[in-house]
Amino acid sequence: MKTKNPFKINSSQLKGNAWLNGLFGVEKENIRVDRHGVIAQTPHPEIFGDKLNHSYITTDFSESQVEMITPPLPSIEQALGFLETIHDIVSLELEDEYLWPQSIPPILPDEDQIPIAKYAKGGRKEQEYRNKLALKYGRKKQAISGIHFNISLDETLLEMLYQSSSQTISAEEFKDEVYLKITRQLLRYRWLYVLIFGSSPIVDPTYELKCCDLPLYFNAKTRGLSIRNSCFGYGNLVDLFPDYGTANGYLRSIEQMVKNGTLTATKELYASVRPKFINNSESISYVEVRFPDINPLSKTGITPDMLHFIHWLAIYGLLTDEQNDFAAEFQTIANSNHGHISLYGLNTNVEVKTENGAAINALYEAKRVIGEMLDLYASLGIDNSDYSNSLTYVQEMVNHPDRRIVHQILKETDVKGFIPFHLEKAKRYLQQSKQNSFNFKGLEDMELSTQLLLREAVRRGIAFDILDRGENFIRLKRDQNIQYVRQATKTSLDNYASILAMENKVITKQILEEHGIRIPKGLDYTDQISAKAGFQYFRDKAVVIKPKLTNFGLGITILKTNSDAAIFERAVDIAFNFDSGILIEEFIEGKEFRIFVMADEVVGILHRVPANVTGNGINTIHELVIEKNKDPLRGKGYHTPLEKIQMGEAELMFLKAQDKDFESIPGKDVTIFLRENSNISTGGDSIDFTDEIPDSYKQIAVRAAQALDVKITGLDMIIPDYKQEATDDNYAIIELNFNPAIHIHCHPFKGKNRRLNEKLLDLLGFPILKEAHEATHRRICLKMQCCELIKN
Amino acid sequence: MKTKNPFKINSSQLKGNAWLNGLFGVEKENIRVDRHGVIAQTPHPEIFGDKLNHSYITTDFSESQVEMITPPLPSIEQALGFLETIHDIVSLELEDEYLWPQSIPPILPDEDQIPIAKYAKGGRKEQEYRNKLALKYGRKKQAISGIHFNISLDETLLEMLYQSSSQTISAEEFKDEVYLKITRQLLRYRWLYVLIFGSSPIVDPTYELKCCDLPLYFNAKTRGLSIRNSCFGYGNLVDLFPDYGTANGYLRSIEQMVKNGTLTATKELYASVRPKFINNSESISYVEVRFPDINPLSKTGITPDMLHFIHWLAIYGLLTDEQNDFAAEFQTIANSNHGHISLYGLNTNVEVKTENGAAINALYEAKRVIGEMLDLYASLGIDNSDYSNSLTYVQEMVNHPDRRIVHQILKETDVKGFIPFHLEKAKRYLQQSKQNSFNFKGLEDMELSTQLLLREAVRRGIAFDILDRGENFIRLKRDQNIQYVRQATKTSLDNYASILAMENKVITKQILEEHGIRIPKGLDYTDQISAKAGFQYFRDKAVVIKPKLTNFGLGITILKTNSDAAIFERAVDIAFNFDSGILIEEFIEGKEFRIFVMADEVVGILHRVPANVTGNGINTIHELVIEKNKDPLRGKGYHTPLEKIQMGEAELMFLKAQDKDFESIPGKDVTIFLRENSNISTGGDSIDFTDEIPDSYKQIAVRAAQALDVKITGLDMIIPDYKQEATDDNYAIIELNFNPAIHIHCHPFKGKNRRLNEKLLDLLGFPILKEAHEATHRRICLKMQCCELIKN
Repeated sequence: MKTKNPFKINSSQLKGNAWLNGLFGVEKENIRVDRHGVIAQTPHPEIFGDKLNHSYITTDFSESQVEMITPPLPSIEQALGFLETIHDIVSLELEDEYLWPQSIPPILPDEDQIPIAKYAKGGRKEQEYRNKLALKYGRKKQAISGIHFNISLDETLLEMLYQSSSQTISAEEFKDEVYLKITRQLLRYRWLYVLIFGSSPIVDPTYELKCCDLPLYFNAKTRGLSIRNSCFGYGNLVDLFPDYGTANGYLRSIEQMVKNGTLTATKELYASVRPKFINNSESISYVEVRFPDINPLSKTGITPDMLHFIHWLAIYGLLTDEQNDFAAEFQTIANSNHGHISLYGLNTNVEVKTENGAAINALYEAKRVIGEMLDLYASLGIDNSDYSNSLTYVQEMVNHPDRRIVHQILKETDVKGFIPFHLEKAKRYLQQSKQNSFNFKGLEDMELSTQLLLREAVRRGIAFDILDRGENFIRLKRDQNIQYVRQATKTSLDNYASILAMENKVITKQILEEHGIRIPKGLDYTDQISAKAGFQYFRDKAVVIKPKLTNFGLGITILKTNSDAAIFERAVDIAFNFDSGILIEEFIEGKEFRIFVMADEVVGILHRVPANVTGNGINTIHELVIEKNKDPLRGKGYHTPLEKIQMGEAELMFLKAQDKDFESIPGKDVTIFLRENSNISTGGDSIDFTDEIPDSYKQIAVRAAQALDVKITGLDMIIPDYKQEATDDNYAIIELNFNPAIHIHCHPFKGKNRRLNEKLLDLLGFPILKEAHEATHRRICLKMQCCELIKN
Repeated sequence: MKTKNPFKINSSQLKGNAWLNGLFGVEKENIRVDRHGVIAQTPHPEIFGDKLNHSYITTDFSESQVEMITPPLPSIEQALGFLETIHDIVSLELEDEYLWPQSIPPILPDEDQIPIAKYAKGGRKEQEYRNKLALKYGRKKQAISGIHFNISLDETLLEMLYQSSSQTISAEEFKDEVYLKITRQLLRYRWLYVLIFGSSPIVDPTYELKCCDLPLYFNAKTRGLSIRNSCFGYGNLVDLFPDYGTANGYLRSIEQMVKNGTLTATKELYASVRPKFINNSESISYVEVRFPDINPLSKTGITPDMLHFIHWLAIYGLLTDEQNDFAAEFQTIANSNHGHISLYGLNTNVEVKTENGAAINALYEAKRVIGEMLDLYASLGIDNSDYSNSLTYVQEMVNHPDRRIVHQILKETDVKGFIPFHLEKAKRYLQQSKQNSFNFKGLEDMELSTQLLLREAVRRGIAFDILDRGENFIRLKRDQNIQYVRQATKTSLDNYASILAMENKVITKQILEEHGIRIPKGLDYTDQISAKAGFQYFRDKAVVIKPKLTNFGLGITILKTNSDAAIFERAVDIAFNFDSGILIEEFIEGKEFRIFVMADEVVGILHRVPANVTGNGINTIHELVIEKNKDPLRGKGYHTPLEKIQMGEAELMFLKAQDKDFESIPGKDVTIFLRENSNISTGGDSIDFTDEIPDSYKQIAVRAAQALDVKITGLDMIIPDYKQEATDDNYAIIELNFNPAIHIHCHPFKGKNRRLNEKLLDLLGFPILKEAHEATHRRICLKMQCCELIKN
């Protein structure tokens, strides 16, 4: 390894949050366990396919070791949300099993009873590789699980840094230098992370602690800070010192190790931080951080503090000058510090070595580094509470080391035992996953319909991009199929002309009428004078007056007894406030149903009811509302399928009109309405009628969709008495919506989940993976098992 | 025929323009003539198909007698515009021929040289029928041409009238009564129309005046008011008196005539006004008015005054009480008045008979009736200048009968001769048709692209509906093919998701870039603070700052030297005024071309140049602008492919910056620009480059359309030097427009008509009719030739 001047970077030009821009990905494994905490003997859930072609969900070494992988995402928050969503989806597919929330394995049977991941035809190489690993290292160590965190910096950020550099190297080389410096620095400072976040302190007696070179004997009662990161975890058989000086040097030094026979493949290099090259490129694309343990105190095993700290540590490392070129001797110090803290970090007197060879109290050194990280944060003018909270948290931990995660784990396992504690957590986390099965975590600002579609995409292993988050515009990709989708139901399945026809109520009605489908008869007007003169024609008929376009129910007036010209004219004025053209139609009495038609099939029918409570003769309306609002389907601000019932002025006024108030006690089974309008947004209930409505109405709905030549539509039909079969005139279609919500049919207040997200993906050409024939080779993270000597 | 109380109608309930609502259709024939005024011996233009399946253009008796048919339209203005458009389209297809602008035939050869319309296989019945007519009546009389005007009342109007009636009959019967009363009244008053508008006063010597029962002998010098409406025109062999009392009575009385052998078919009944039944219905759908002559003073043969007068006469007749049941004796009086005025109406002393048998001066009686028509107009509170102008016109004609059309015709034919006068008119009308080949008359408020598409639809015999005029939303129909089209280029050819992707510039660019197509590099921002911070990144680079959505060039700033943060920030603010997201992109120097891609083919390329004039060393800029503005392609308010160059403040300022004003005289071949922007709307020129741009650029354009999976797009490409072949980086695509105008490619300032309207219809599955195999039987209006006795 050649000596060269350490790479320095000039940060003075750039201030602000642009420093935080980048892409972030997370991978983690969890062992599936049965209700007793024993590693599961069941196969990987069939729904996720054959492990080689699912983008997000596969297995690691063991058949029971689920690996979850997020794509690179533009924020840590999104990456964590994505991971949580994968985690929820996996959890919900398990039958009587749980995801083990700990890096250290659960109860393990004898070696040969630990199931190795099974592969179909296309995965013979993967299968053979695992069989070799099992023989060489034993299956128990392979069952250790962890978290990998991938970081890349924003291209614009890199370009700006390059521009403010001396530019004596190319932009490409500059980028390599940046990632290599981050790698070196994270290798130097990783002990600091373990000191704070290490969370694999003990093992179950079925796990055997073995370490080739450790002078002491440890047993099942041994306590560490991060057993996984210690020599009892994984490591290469001998000390390896790659060249971290240049990208080329790095690649060549590892090739040399393979040539020597030290490694069987480049990927066998164990290192807790690795520069990563994509698609055989000779340039570095990102840095992979492999030291985080699963945190059993968090459902997903990760807290935002953990990752924000690592990311900021990487930036801090990048902007902090190095004392040397990180040659073998300095790598040895870094490795030693890491192993030592992992094993002995519970002790507040534990020391680390400086690169000068001096020993120093680890907590003392930690405080110094964190102080510098905070100073940097301030001097760069960064303002992001996720990062500042993380730094505040780690500061608290080094000031009060007894508050660290590891101590909470030990406290509880001491009382409950290692297995029961983690099992109890696993069960609670499953409950949490069940409670919210509609949100896509990290994307909660997107429409629920889109979130549901994306959840199902993850379940089916469909890769996706969010092309425009505000517009809910996504792209789905699997094999050769690429689909663009906006707001869940605007897709390539429909042609543009039909959408435009649906958007125009007058045209929609004309087409339906031509096809013999009943619509409310009426006239359309483009000027207020003619519309008002229409009173003559509509006098004494029940009418609806509404704007020609618009989809949101605004500007609509219903006049059930149309005998007053002044009221009629006022309604005309209101409608004209929303459009330059209006419709005046006969009003048809009856229940309104939303009928969702997909590819000539009715896939869901819903009726909406205004906000209401049903009495029990005991509780007040106030109490009944509070009880009803506890439903996890009810939330605030459209993040849930239903909204909480409000107890505001509008509701009080409506109760008063019924001679009631919030303190009234409705009789048993008496339903009290708190609103006139049935909108879900004001606490209304959605009630599934898919199985109740006779086929005859469904056929009409399908004919209506066909008349407009549309594949996806939400059709509003008035039915006076749905218990009677449809005739030519006992129904009327009010309109066809070209962008109907799917979430209301998936999570109704009453009734079944009609799984429109699944049906939509079927229709878009993305069936569930089961036994996919075209196996796409996926990168499988392999855990190395050999020991690494810690020289103390 | 049973006597019954004459049908009365109560008009007191209803006031206003609703009385004018209805549907109006026009049919007319014109003989094709050669440059000498001789009936053409050439076949009907092949492009219009085989006569049985063109919706608008067919032949009547003679192969040279073009029949033009409008669909029923919601206003007379629209019907006339439609007819004019058909007339223009037919005229433009003729080679060295003209449309003869007179009901009386042009120079006719011997009987057997007058070509009878020829039919392909499917038209054998039509062919045989014509052969029979030729033998029975002679071909010369069959060559008389005329105008039919079809009137139906608005359904809502009919329903309102029914509701305010005593309702002793059904709504259906009520409607029949209305149409029958209109028929009776128009038969009574038709002499009044002929008196004013008759315009077939003389014949060419090759036409022979023959009338079975007329006591006097008339020769080629005979002058009448409307020879066509006289006994020298057509009529049944004997007097026929249908029952005009009820729809059923009418149908049965005609059936009886057929039974008797008086008529060979019901359609052989000659009557100058007929109630019409559609699709074998027993109810009347509309009234057909057959007495208008072709008016040679108007290009289409019809003036708005003619039809508005007839329509109002129908309403007047409907609301005026009848004195009798219009039995045979009263029909005889009406027929006699009509024939008499047709022949002798030039004489101001001519008389008509009242139903009491009294003779009365026709002009005096005309004044009385017109006075009542005006009173009715006022009392119903109608306000429509088309109708009031028409009434004013007819009033003037009866007050000054020497100002009638017929006198103008006679005056000119006396000087020039019958044939030369009409031939001169025919030639002038052809010139007028050529001058404006882009507008669809009567629909000039619609977008030019839509007008061009509709013109081509007419040429191809495609039926269409205007579903929403303001939205330019139309439906095209021929055989089984139905296509919905909005704004000419929003069609079923494109899928909705691709449209949405095109609409979003950020997504468009991402997709193009992924496909290796060069775009201006840049960044997008959703908040002003981040965007302004971007100055650091874009400093000293030429940039374009623009809103994310929008299609109209609004809010865009170009900074060629981006060195001032304040200016940069101002541009950011401007862009954010138009959208919540903006793009900052590299500015690429070069000419911008609009490339129109249709179904993977470049069909037109256009470059736009700012308003300019080119000097000749003699004229001032002012004079050059006036000269350039004379181009019929230039108009005002977007009704023409180009806009007139303005000479306003903006232009003057721009000239002053060049040390010029409107009085400056540019040197020969020196081009002076009057504007910086190249918009067509401010007088810019459109220049066709379709043949100049190398294929290599076209291939890139097609690839870009394919990348977004769109069939129709107008793509904006910057090309620094179009004389060089395209490489990977000597071009850039700025955006793809999902609703590109087609008219700019059809009528550019310089270059060929790229006929995108034709290409679009090809693509939509509507090829040109030539020899269509599925012959659809069309109603062919047949002219009867036998004589009708006028008892004087």
